Amino acid sequence: MQMDDDKREAILQRLRRIEGQVRGLQRMVEDDRYCGDILNQISSVQKSLRATGKVITRNHLETCVTDALRSGDTDAAERTYDEIMDLLYKQIQ
Amino acid sequence: MQMDDDKREAILQRLRRIEGQVRGLQRMVEDDRYCGDILNQISSVQKSLRATGKVITRNHLETCVTDALRSGDTDAAERTYDEIMDLLYKQIQ
Amino acid sequence: MQMDDDKREAILQRLRRIEGQVRGLQRMVEDDRYCGDILNQISSVQKSLRATGKVITRNHLETCVTDALRSGDTDAAERTYDEIMDLLYKQIQ
Amino acid sequence: MQMDDDKREAILQRLRRIEGQVRGLQRMVEDDRYCGDILNQISSVQKSLRATGKVITRNHLETCVTDALRSGDTDAAERTYDEIMDLLYKQIQ
Repeated sequence: MQMDDDKREAILQRLRRIEGQVRGLQRMVEDDRYCGDILNQISSVQKSLRATGKVITRNHLETCVTDALRSGDTDAAERTYDEIMDLLYKQIQ
Repeated sequence: MQMDDDKREAILQRLRRIEGQVRGLQRMVEDDRYCGDILNQISSVQKSLRATGKVITRNHLETCVTDALRSGDTDAAERTYDEIMDLLYKQIQ
Repeated sequence: MQMDDDKREAILQRLRRIEGQVRGLQRMVEDDRYCGDILNQISSVQKSLRATGKVITRNHLETCVTDALRSGDTDAAERTYDEIMDLLYKQIQ
Repeated sequence: MQMDDDKREAILQRLRRIEGQVRGLQRMVEDDRYCGDILNQISSVQKSLRATGKVITRNHLETCVTDALRSGDTDAAERTYDEIMDLLYKQIQ
């Protein structure tokens, strides 16, 4: 992963917060909190993950994808198109 | 949350696995793993979260929602319809 | 489908607008419009469909689902839970 | 939209089928069909739209996006990254 240190550290901080949110979910279940509150917390963890995925996807476009398309290698370009479609539409599932 | 102990423990195990998956994501970022692999891992954490949400949603329908609709209290029923729609469509966002 | 006439007519109007949006998409493709504009139009048709689905889902909760849960028939309740989960999570796919 | 005639015609056929599906939805509502059947039909129209969007997105990557990234024009590349992210994540909403 081609990524400058600041961006990498920012992503790690996002992931540590998400880890904390998941532990928070565990406490909510242990404390028998209302289902609706737990489902709302799950939705916010999903939102945080989606936001993290967007940062990494953008970085991927700017680095690996751009390098592959600029290389002029048609096979590399085809593989890159396949990969982008797969990665992005998997995030919709 | 009205839930029997076995189901609660099964959800806690799911959430502990998700916590482990998120820590795995952190290591992948620290190890500069390929963006595509990291994005795929994010998708599988999303999938685990969605599956956990489905178990809790089903339980919610079988308990709180059913009690509210059977109570005959029209205000309680209205609030329940609002809540189900909000909870479920938030999981789509 | 238990639905009063006004609500049914409002849904039919939504669907006629969506039909018009889809024909608009056809013209955009015939006119070789920019891909990004076409993709944005697809997103707005999806949004209209989701909004229509929400109205019908809410109506379903208020009628068939409530009747089934109030009937006290446990098999009917089980089938209803299965159906709600299937219908709603299919809209996420 | 840079697209060969066969691909354009194939997309037009998809959109005509979707138009037919939407008219089918109108008839189902007029005939007071069961809500669950109508919601399932909405989901299949959503699926057809998503599949059509994927074909156009792939074509967009292979043409406009590739041209912009190969142009070496950094502003064009930035606009292209913004656009891809916007187009794709809008399809998730």
